[in-house]
Amino acid sequence: MSDAQEKNSRAGETPPRFDDAFRARFEDLLRWRRDVRRFRPERVDPALLDRFLALANLAPSVGLSQPWRFVWVDHPERRKAVRANFEAANAEALANTSPDRAAIYAKLKLAGLDEAPHHLALFAEPDPAQGHGLGRRTMPETVPYSAAMAAHALWLAARGHGVGVGWVSILDPAALTRCLDVPPGWLFIGYFCVGYPAAEHVTPELERHGWERRRAEAATALRR
Amino acid sequence: MSDAQEKNSRAGETPPRFDDAFRARFEDLLRWRRDVRRFRPERVDPALLDRFLALANLAPSVGLSQPWRFVWVDHPERRKAVRANFEAANAEALANTSPDRAAIYAKLKLAGLDEAPHHLALFAEPDPAQGHGLGRRTMPETVPYSAAMAAHALWLAARGHGVGVGWVSILDPAALTRCLDVPPGWLFIGYFCVGYPAAEHVTPELERHGWERRRAEAATALRR
Repeated sequence: MSDAQEKNSRAGETPPRFDDAFRARFEDLLRWRRDVRRFRPERVDPALLDRFLALANLAPSVGLSQPWRFVWVDHPERRKAVRANFEAANAEALANTSPDRAAIYAKLKLAGLDEAPHHLALFAEPDPAQGHGLGRRTMPETVPYSAAMAAHALWLAARGHGVGVGWVSILDPAALTRCLDVPPGWLFIGYFCVGYPAAEHVTPELERHGWERRRAEAATALRR
Repeated sequence: MSDAQEKNSRAGETPPRFDDAFRARFEDLLRWRRDVRRFRPERVDPALLDRFLALANLAPSVGLSQPWRFVWVDHPERRKAVRANFEAANAEALANTSPDRAAIYAKLKLAGLDEAPHHLALFAEPDPAQGHGLGRRTMPETVPYSAAMAAHALWLAARGHGVGVGWVSILDPAALTRCLDVPPGWLFIGYFCVGYPAAEHVTPELERHGWERRRAEAATALRR
């Protein structure tokens, strides 16, 4: 028995073989993911929300540091502060948008903070004990990158259950961090609205409303 | 016909319904992803590599900016420079590892740069025209976070085809960027080895070799 076989045998599992049918469905998952800003009001089963976090926890992390820190935001006063934070940042963004685009910007719905039944803030612990510093000496930014990957894993896991996620970044991160009273030093990564989507689309909302269109991948690959 | 139905109908598609069987396989995909450092030498079909980039291109991005920039690194001289970069950074990391852990560190295989048939560098364009600045005024770091999510999408897509990916971050990012001669201003996100894995494991390499163990998710969720 090879070392590899022995280790997997100890874990009690044989490696999966993914087939064409699975891969086609996985591509559907990626294509239909969407950044959701329009939610139905009903809450998601708490066991399912826990499951999403458990799956996010399987994301890659530098040095196996698992630096992501998730915070469910439920308290009405805190949600009110988050909404006010978004509204101020969004008003400032609108004021700084070029005149030819301001009319479109003003019409975009950029967050589902009012309707989404669940709010999830994501932080990273910048220098966690876990991982013993491995892999992040020259690139400490791999810690927040790991957290971003966990957000993506959670997003796909949720979509697989028909649950939508919307990423809110039009926020003052320092004020957001203060208002959530998290341990000192945590780095704010993003704020996510979670709930069942009011509608499902294969085309991104920003594309449907004329802000930007998605480009094919050919433009983004070089060879060296 | 609702607005939502009309738009999807125009796109010619009905929303997918994912079932328990798909979700179980998707969980397998996340659980068996792995950071691969031991590769078989055979090359991956170029059409498949293109497909991985096309799927990465479906990742979430701030303001639909798609700021990820992929660079396949093939030239022997450039690969040699990348290897030398890694070796210098790794030697320095070892020299700075606490004496009680240095023996384990020295034994870890932290990159598959010699064996991996394909090398993929990932950059982000920090202030791309695409997206018209939307969503990144207060949090410009959402641009590299978008690129990290694209790396995760590519990683999962590859694993679905039995192809392994290994993230190398023990590098001097400035020297790496110079040696790949990319457009000025691009931000280096990570370097990825790509190829068929020599073995498949459900347990991370760093855990199997005693560096760190993966923790359950309960520790990482707060309520506010």
